[in-house]
Amino acid sequence: MNSFGRIFRVTLFGESHGPMVGISIDGCPAGLELNEEDFITDLERRKGGVQKGTTPRKEDDKPIFITGYFNGKTTGAPLTILFENKNTRSGDYEKIKSIPRPGHADFVAHKKFGENEDYRGGGHFSGRLTVCLVAAGVVAKKMLNLVPSASLKDTELQGGVSIEARITEIGGETDIESGLQKAIDAKDSVGGIVECTVKRLPMGLGEPFFDSVESAISHAVFSIPAIKGIEFGAGFSAAKMFGSNHNDSIIDASGKTNTNHAGGVVGGITNGNDLVFRVVVKPTSSTPKEQESWNWETQQVERFSVKGRHDLCIALRVPPVLEAVTAIVLADFMLLEQKIKRVI
Amino acid sequence: MNSFGRIFRVTLFGESHGPMVGISIDGCPAGLELNEEDFITDLERRKGGVQKGTTPRKEDDKPIFITGYFNGKTTGAPLTILFENKNTRSGDYEKIKSIPRPGHADFVAHKKFGENEDYRGGGHFSGRLTVCLVAAGVVAKKMLNLVPSASLKDTELQGGVSIEARITEIGGETDIESGLQKAIDAKDSVGGIVECTVKRLPMGLGEPFFDSVESAISHAVFSIPAIKGIEFGAGFSAAKMFGSNHNDSIIDASGKTNTNHAGGVVGGITNGNDLVFRVVVKPTSSTPKEQESWNWETQQVERFSVKGRHDLCIALRVPPVLEAVTAIVLADFMLLEQKIKRVI
Amino acid sequence: MNSFGRIFRVTLFGESHGPMVGISIDGCPAGLELNEEDFITDLERRKGGVQKGTTPRKEDDKPIFITGYFNGKTTGAPLTILFENKNTRSGDYEKIKSIPRPGHADFVAHKKFGENEDYRGGGHFSGRLTVCLVAAGVVAKKMLNLVPSASLKDTELQGGVSIEARITEIGGETDIESGLQKAIDAKDSVGGIVECTVKRLPMGLGEPFFDSVESAISHAVFSIPAIKGIEFGAGFSAAKMFGSNHNDSIIDASGKTNTNHAGGVVGGITNGNDLVFRVVVKPTSSTPKEQESWNWETQQVERFSVKGRHDLCIALRVPPVLEAVTAIVLADFMLLEQKIKRVI
Amino acid sequence: MNSFGRIFRVTLFGESHGPMVGISIDGCPAGLELNEEDFITDLERRKGGVQKGTTPRKEDDKPIFITGYFNGKTTGAPLTILFENKNTRSGDYEKIKSIPRPGHADFVAHKKFGENEDYRGGGHFSGRLTVCLVAAGVVAKKMLNLVPSASLKDTELQGGVSIEARITEIGGETDIESGLQKAIDAKDSVGGIVECTVKRLPMGLGEPFFDSVESAISHAVFSIPAIKGIEFGAGFSAAKMFGSNHNDSIIDASGKTNTNHAGGVVGGITNGNDLVFRVVVKPTSSTPKEQESWNWETQQVERFSVKGRHDLCIALRVPPVLEAVTAIVLADFMLLEQKIKRVI
Repeated sequence: MNSFGRIFRVTLFGESHGPMVGISIDGCPAGLELNEEDFITDLERRKGGVQKGTTPRKEDDKPIFITGYFNGKTTGAPLTILFENKNTRSGDYEKIKSIPRPGHADFVAHKKFGENEDYRGGGHFSGRLTVCLVAAGVVAKKMLNLVPSASLKDTELQGGVSIEARITEIGGETDIESGLQKAIDAKDSVGGIVECTVKRLPMGLGEPFFDSVESAISHAVFSIPAIKGIEFGAGFSAAKMFGSNHNDSIIDASGKTNTNHAGGVVGGITNGNDLVFRVVVKPTSSTPKEQESWNWETQQVERFSVKGRHDLCIALRVPPVLEAVTAIVLADFMLLEQKIKRVI
Repeated sequence: MNSFGRIFRVTLFGESHGPMVGISIDGCPAGLELNEEDFITDLERRKGGVQKGTTPRKEDDKPIFITGYFNGKTTGAPLTILFENKNTRSGDYEKIKSIPRPGHADFVAHKKFGENEDYRGGGHFSGRLTVCLVAAGVVAKKMLNLVPSASLKDTELQGGVSIEARITEIGGETDIESGLQKAIDAKDSVGGIVECTVKRLPMGLGEPFFDSVESAISHAVFSIPAIKGIEFGAGFSAAKMFGSNHNDSIIDASGKTNTNHAGGVVGGITNGNDLVFRVVVKPTSSTPKEQESWNWETQQVERFSVKGRHDLCIALRVPPVLEAVTAIVLADFMLLEQKIKRVI
Repeated sequence: MNSFGRIFRVTLFGESHGPMVGISIDGCPAGLELNEEDFITDLERRKGGVQKGTTPRKEDDKPIFITGYFNGKTTGAPLTILFENKNTRSGDYEKIKSIPRPGHADFVAHKKFGENEDYRGGGHFSGRLTVCLVAAGVVAKKMLNLVPSASLKDTELQGGVSIEARITEIGGETDIESGLQKAIDAKDSVGGIVECTVKRLPMGLGEPFFDSVESAISHAVFSIPAIKGIEFGAGFSAAKMFGSNHNDSIIDASGKTNTNHAGGVVGGITNGNDLVFRVVVKPTSSTPKEQESWNWETQQVERFSVKGRHDLCIALRVPPVLEAVTAIVLADFMLLEQKIKRVI
Repeated sequence: MNSFGRIFRVTLFGESHGPMVGISIDGCPAGLELNEEDFITDLERRKGGVQKGTTPRKEDDKPIFITGYFNGKTTGAPLTILFENKNTRSGDYEKIKSIPRPGHADFVAHKKFGENEDYRGGGHFSGRLTVCLVAAGVVAKKMLNLVPSASLKDTELQGGVSIEARITEIGGETDIESGLQKAIDAKDSVGGIVECTVKRLPMGLGEPFFDSVESAISHAVFSIPAIKGIEFGAGFSAAKMFGSNHNDSIIDASGKTNTNHAGGVVGGITNGNDLVFRVVVKPTSSTPKEQESWNWETQQVERFSVKGRHDLCIALRVPPVLEAVTAIVLADFMLLEQKIKRVI
């Protein structure tokens, strides 16, 4: 339930306020060069510390390689990366234990796991665990960039696979700054939309039915906390289109199309055009606004405020996480389709 | 790749123009009463024969139980159901073999499987295989209705789980008839939106991260041909909302909320409120309109028309299929959470 | 539970006295030539009809390809093969329904599945289903023989992988005929030992821990009814050996060893020497001898005789089944290690 | 490849000479009480420090719970346990890097993973990782002992499941001491046989074909380094028996049998009698005796001696590991059959 993938397979563990969170990556090719610096950019992007609207909680977020790593390279054995949880302030959460926070998993976690759950900071449900996804994504991205050109027939695919996610909308505004300012003014949290584009992906990844690229990506994407929807290519606007408009005409022998309403996937399989999808990120549940919820102790609905340090707009931190899970999914497909070797 | 589920596990096989399509269901509880009549309603709904805009191809669609079925009940061994493919007209497809149809998998299938693919009618990519999903869905729905009330603590959950999908929009119109008429007038195909609502689902199904209810449902949903997006609860409109609006306040001890923007899932886990999600169905790729595509023989872009019998609006046939994959996913979660017994 | 494999994945279904048994093979490379004749030899060997001690029940055993097969080749979609059950005489089993047969699954199946099980001829537990394993094994063997030599570095591995199982002992006798005669004289059934040897297998298949070659093979082997033990290389005799005798000295750069006490597997990984293992097959549970068992109706122990047509020595029919499951396991490892292409 | 199980699922990672080894357990019920003391007995048994013939390497072997553990109980989230590797002497291994040790994975690991493998002390292939299996086994045993009696119909099954493995033979001697002494006198290592007995296991665990109890147990057992064979009940001696002798007569309504040649499993399913199986453990490959092997540098066969600290008889340390993997397999089956609740 905390594992994902067929050959490149990640297993996730940890809680917001435990000593560490971690991820173990099985099926990672041997011989992949890795060092701490490789992780800095994406881990920093995930922290979003310099942007308006992100949490002031500072994590060191230094990856600790405990297994599968030797002389600066992966060994082919499971690669396990840990991150310490520093700077946790559990006390903030203790105070509101009697009131399940709306939008959070507090209520269902309590019902599902009984008195045993680690309720502090969302426990295992915490966005904190996305640091592990980002780390596995860094590994997957390195693999995707190492695709031996020789294994690809189409010259335009050379150069390695690039994955780039960017925020396209905050609070209904494409001018992101003003979307954020609106939330700051309202003393509220706000949602957003993030778009991910993958370039130079080989044709032929994915399988009809339960291993469609859309199935695998959406499966992984909904493991990111706060995501509530995903659409590929034209997505929901396809509902308003005629077939003659939506269909992408194939215009050359490589399969290139004149439009990309399919988002690079037909029949569940990549068609060599850019893979494009968008996700919606709900507003941070921990809004600064006062809210109402059931109080388990008093057995009545009460007004309360969420304490703790939280992001005004969690969407700001989603891009590197979205890239990461996309890379994880694609690395697995590339191994399955023998586009990446087991030993590099 | 053609199997899905953990305990209630389906394996799908077949092609549009082969002799049969089928599905084998592993993990189905022993002792479930089943007969042909149970399948009629959903199989008829899938055919959509009486509606404007659905294909005139008639399939008998009579389920043939070949294994796991004895004396009118499931035995606990794999339940395998076959459907014969009748009334196929492969000749229609032969003519256009040299031109990969836009929006279809023709091009990628040819690249992926070489000369070996069964190109007739989309082969294994065909919507024909959804008849098997519907059949497995009928079995899953029966299981969900048999949930022993005694295993559920909350009295309001009694009565069995209900799953209902309905079309909410065709071609941008909520008046479905006019959406269809617009396409008929334009001699074109058209897309639509289908919404699925699940009532009386127990709280606590799903797990954080890779087994979230959203992950599992979206994985299954994107196996349905023509689906290009999914959103839960408020979905994409959440991007425009503030947290204080989006959050659903918990208003009683059962976890009932005053709104349902979460669509019944928080932290990846069902919260006892209605599970609600919407999918977008692209316009049928086989539009009656003339189109352009690459011709493999002449090595140039050419105009052509798709022959064969096709739906103007494939969304019309999606509701029973969407209910089916939802039921399959939920039956599996119910077994995993021990809400359904292994022997009924 | 009825599926096995990671990439080359088989799903088994059917019962002894239902209309058909079948197997669906996912992940089979596209473009593999197949025809009915390919199956004759192994299917005939499995019937063992000409040998002393095998059942007189005759099955036509003609493979029916219903999916994944087009123009004499596999298509890359799931390949499903059915076999009709002809010549069943369920009446024989009806008589003894009240007495669970010792050595058979009658008692546990009844307890596990309740009144719902298909008790006729062992139902889903029947050795009848091994016909499906043999069919999948034929496909796997063809794949293993098509290994492109170019992908292998060591010249001695060229020529394709060969898998051969043979009976080495019946009733304690290496002269098989006299072992059988002993059982015939005693009017009893008898057990045996079957040895399987795989030649020209590439080095490097398997992974430490849960995907060791021994783990995967033994997992598959114990799915064959009547197998009660397995040993690799020197096997149980290793318990009596010193390390200096058991260790196989490596004598050249290819990894060739002077002895093969490891049976071709070290650290769970093939070492390029012959893979050798032996299994023990228990005596057919349906002995002609009168036996005692509990009678569910009279609630006491009673003497009775098993009716129906049965093998005196089921070991005689095991070799092609053992080869088949071995081929299934190895084909999967070869795909995982990219030694067999996804499209041939 | 380093994960195993369906609901109770373990993921293993680490190397002999890395900083830590660990295991993450998914699907562990919430609310299981655990403390360090629970692990002492089995971890000490695994070290075998007091017995003749075990390695003088001392490991602290203190379990470090990093995730899934809160207030002395499991939380329902992945339970991750680490062990530090102390007292490693990698230098011993450096010296023989040019000579692949016979019986070890050195040669195949080098060929499989290239220059990248962590060769020190066997790396990921090391028996060191069994400390993690033992830890997971402690958790599984606790679960099996907590089986709520009320869920079991047969009164004789109350009291919890017991699993006990013991050495039955060393170097061909049932008097274990003399078997060891023989090896000590010969300055050689020696093999042995270990028998595992499980009492009070419910009837009905396991499924026909690929999820037979024998399949699952043997799969897990062959992940233990040095195991080369397994047999259930009468095992290999069944080859010499007649059916009338091998069959276990059912003598009462609970399914009790007069003999137990089946080892408690018929048709792949537990029958309520003791589950009994034996494994053979090969002699420690690192014998003190001088050996021959290929030298990669000199490109010729050379005599050499293995340095480092090693067990004369690895079988001595197998019993707690064998119990552990058995408990892991059975805990998973118990969850699947709903005999253990998801929250305790």
